[in-house]
Amino acid sequence: MAHTYEFARPALTVDIVVLALDEEDLQVMLIERDLKPYEGQWALPGGFVRVDETLEEAARRELEEETGLKDIYLEQLYTFGDIKRDPRERVVTVTYYALVNLEGHDVHASTDARNAAWFSVNDLPKLAFDHETILSAAHERLRGKVRYQPIGFELLPEKFTLRQMQHLYEVILDRELDKRNFRKKVLGMEIVKETKEIEKDVAHRAARLYRFDKRRYDKLTKQGFNFEI
Amino acid sequence: MAHTYEFARPALTVDIVVLALDEEDLQVMLIERDLKPYEGQWALPGGFVRVDETLEEAARRELEEETGLKDIYLEQLYTFGDIKRDPRERVVTVTYYALVNLEGHDVHASTDARNAAWFSVNDLPKLAFDHETILSAAHERLRGKVRYQPIGFELLPEKFTLRQMQHLYEVILDRELDKRNFRKKVLGMEIVKETKEIEKDVAHRAARLYRFDKRRYDKLTKQGFNFEI
Repeated sequence: MAHTYEFARPALTVDIVVLALDEEDLQVMLIERDLKPYEGQWALPGGFVRVDETLEEAARRELEEETGLKDIYLEQLYTFGDIKRDPRERVVTVTYYALVNLEGHDVHASTDARNAAWFSVNDLPKLAFDHETILSAAHERLRGKVRYQPIGFELLPEKFTLRQMQHLYEVILDRELDKRNFRKKVLGMEIVKETKEIEKDVAHRAARLYRFDKRRYDKLTKQGFNFEI
Repeated sequence: MAHTYEFARPALTVDIVVLALDEEDLQVMLIERDLKPYEGQWALPGGFVRVDETLEEAARRELEEETGLKDIYLEQLYTFGDIKRDPRERVVTVTYYALVNLEGHDVHASTDARNAAWFSVNDLPKLAFDHETILSAAHERLRGKVRYQPIGFELLPEKFTLRQMQHLYEVILDRELDKRNFRKKVLGMEIVKETKEIEKDVAHRAARLYRFDKRRYDKLTKQGFNFEI
């Protein structure tokens, strides 16, 4: 059934940047488009907002339909509305981003998209639309966030080494950090607690495992701090 | 001329929160609606996005049409898409906010709206739609920002006293600050420079005037810091 309006309306979509961490890099979830435009190219998951769903509901629905990812904490990123960002017609997109632990989520292709997969943000295919800009904005937001909020709860496994945590910060900030300073800062903030366990099955000397002190972590998230490293 | 689409589309609007500072309070620019719904009630300036303008262009156009305010630095705030936020139909609104110096801007009513005026955020009329939520989000964003970025360049006159600057922070944070700590912190950041002038025409003892060190200010805006006060 066609819908008629007095004035022309931009189409409204959502696009979602899902970021995860592996041993090497920050990873982003992409889908292979099976429709024009950009057929066969990789893109962020996303699609049109229905009139009877909120923006976040639309983002959750599209993400699950296209990648199988669900029950993820989404945060609104930015709304992109350049006139020519979609070659078909005027499309405004509200973007969301999420940080997930790679281990906890099964990913599968769906009926909506040919293929869904993780890509290293440092080794990306050419993306459809302005999705490179959107991904950069998500990375930038994350880079800003680590300066004044604790980070990692969603990205690291439940128990982790300080080396893993430093690696996370290095990947987000895209530079190497001094090991001693980093540990001093993290332990000083009291957001992590030592466990009695050490790493298993590692070639190097097994390191102590830590976990987040969720109460302290949430308090600092609310209150903010300055993580100058 | 009517416009027909295969699928129903939400309407897309922009709304703008313009904040300024007077001697007492944080002020927000509101317009009196002369159309239904909420006829005669106060609301944020805003309106429908045309298909041939960007979101920011729409925000600038509506702001000037409705209030006469122009040449203002707008920052995108958040996109609100609750299903029932507009009683007429589904309307998604992309919001922007701006900080301005009260002195520099003439405000006038326009053909689009009956009346435009500044209101203290501490003494507001009942607002139309979800505009109280949008205003709260802008105030909250500002509160978050003062913790890790310098602020005040757009809100204070070119030359100002440290008392005025402290007042700005107190209004944004909504609590009293310790005068000595505040001065120590601000002078320590080196974002303000002493001028050779003092206040004129004041009943109390005339205080030293300062101005922002724009280079240092911009550097700290980019790099961030922690203004723990």
